[in-house]
Amino acid sequence: MDEVVTIIDIIGVFVFAISGASTAMSKRLDPFGVFIVAFVASVGGGTLRDMLIGRNPVFWMEDSVYVYVIMAGALVAVLFKERIAYLRRTLSLFDTIGLAIFTIIGIEIGIRFKLDPVIVLSLGVMTGSFGGVIRDILVNEIPVVFHKEVYATASLIGGMFYMGGVFFGLDKFWNEIISITVIIIIRIIAVKYELALPSIYNKKKE
Amino acid sequence: MDEVVTIIDIIGVFVFAISGASTAMSKRLDPFGVFIVAFVASVGGGTLRDMLIGRNPVFWMEDSVYVYVIMAGALVAVLFKERIAYLRRTLSLFDTIGLAIFTIIGIEIGIRFKLDPVIVLSLGVMTGSFGGVIRDILVNEIPVVFHKEVYATASLIGGMFYMGGVFFGLDKFWNEIISITVIIIIRIIAVKYELALPSIYNKKKE
Amino acid sequence: MDEVVTIIDIIGVFVFAISGASTAMSKRLDPFGVFIVAFVASVGGGTLRDMLIGRNPVFWMEDSVYVYVIMAGALVAVLFKERIAYLRRTLSLFDTIGLAIFTIIGIEIGIRFKLDPVIVLSLGVMTGSFGGVIRDILVNEIPVVFHKEVYATASLIGGMFYMGGVFFGLDKFWNEIISITVIIIIRIIAVKYELALPSIYNKKKE
Repeated sequence: MDEVVTIIDIIGVFVFAISGASTAMSKRLDPFGVFIVAFVASVGGGTLRDMLIGRNPVFWMEDSVYVYVIMAGALVAVLFKERIAYLRRTLSLFDTIGLAIFTIIGIEIGIRFKLDPVIVLSLGVMTGSFGGVIRDILVNEIPVVFHKEVYATASLIGGMFYMGGVFFGLDKFWNEIISITVIIIIRIIAVKYELALPSIYNKKKE
Repeated sequence: MDEVVTIIDIIGVFVFAISGASTAMSKRLDPFGVFIVAFVASVGGGTLRDMLIGRNPVFWMEDSVYVYVIMAGALVAVLFKERIAYLRRTLSLFDTIGLAIFTIIGIEIGIRFKLDPVIVLSLGVMTGSFGGVIRDILVNEIPVVFHKEVYATASLIGGMFYMGGVFFGLDKFWNEIISITVIIIIRIIAVKYELALPSIYNKKKE
Repeated sequence: MDEVVTIIDIIGVFVFAISGASTAMSKRLDPFGVFIVAFVASVGGGTLRDMLIGRNPVFWMEDSVYVYVIMAGALVAVLFKERIAYLRRTLSLFDTIGLAIFTIIGIEIGIRFKLDPVIVLSLGVMTGSFGGVIRDILVNEIPVVFHKEVYATASLIGGMFYMGGVFFGLDKFWNEIISITVIIIIRIIAVKYELALPSIYNKKKE
């Protein structure tokens, strides 16, 4: 894996560790629980991805830097918890950055394994969102990705952008930057203007 | 894999997608949440099975037809949601068909991998019921398979039927049809007559 | 795998089956639900471990003794449920023994796969605690390991003891016995004196 991927990968792990630790603290878990939820939120998406495609051992077992980055992310979340809780609630900022980065990494790996485009997209969305899903399950909540603002939709659109970029031969580095930015911008706009997918339910409670 | 397996496999994925989407809608998830719960309910059992035995990549990554079938199932569930909610509540119809099909497929794969009979049965029951388990966990419920009418029991008995058929050299196609029918009939009888496993608890709340 | 590991492995599976069945009964699941939660609690940690490192098929599929041991454990839990509920509540006894054993087995396997020490420790803690985590998720609770007495901490310290023993060339059998004992003693002391990790929260509810 080239260096750029590794750096954005580590940023993704770091922000998801903050997000996981922050969620765990909102449930007042003990320090170890905070670390474990941070760990699972960080590596969950990539671990599922690697188990699905059969890449063994999974990515974080081959390089201990991930564990240290997660420790750092959890520590930052504990030390600056008021400020981070604010960012988390208002913008879902850390989630969004992690979602964007992991979506693109998942798609890159899917392409490398020569999977069918619709499978590549599925793998990207799963890699991006599964960490958050399992984080929420661990603290006994319905995963936020299932009922909140265009979360997975942003991941899907960004993933399509990236695949379009690959198709048109765009430089990999810029393709990553652009696609990640697209996901983040869609999310921020959705949160700011309270956009949601069109409802499939009648107005009245059924 | 021969063609018959593929067709019943796809039917299983389709009905579980309906079941998953329907459960998700009962929790009023957004369209993407509905699709993802449908996805996980559909491929969850087979994905676990493939990861346990080490078949990589997992089945649905090798053929994009599964993703389209899931989309179709979720769409059907959204379009006909009143009727499907009725069938789901009264007969658990879609669950039952999916359970039956995936149990038998799990057992076939266990046999092909030459696993011990009791392991083959465990793999069959898991493949059949895990999609429903993870579907319920995702929407924050105790899995229905753990406390409702003879669900896993039906899967177990049908699995034994199939293994008996293999032992006596029954034609594979008829063995599949018979075993799947056995599971569905047991479930329907259990639901109709409100059968349950004998209780292991005292009558009074402990 | 040598014989000693197999015996302690089976003890670990047995006590986790009791723990899982006991938790399931506290939620009044039906007999099959009790068995499945016992199954998942028992093999969950080791299954995750094997899927992470790519050991296929996973350990319990290669030897049907595990399934019988789980059945025995679940049966014991059902037959002696009052007494076991008492031991479970007061000492978390079965959890603790299982945690200790599976932590050490996870660490041994991590060492055999020549993973980095911090990854070996992570794998040990995960192998030890994941069965309990998934057990609690299945019955719709926040995993006890995340917010109760020094549970994962005991696992971590015992794992460090074992790795220290390996470093200093301690006999494997005695190293296992000592490390497992360390974990159990830490847990018992923590429960008895109601020790907890230092809080990272302000006294008042935020």
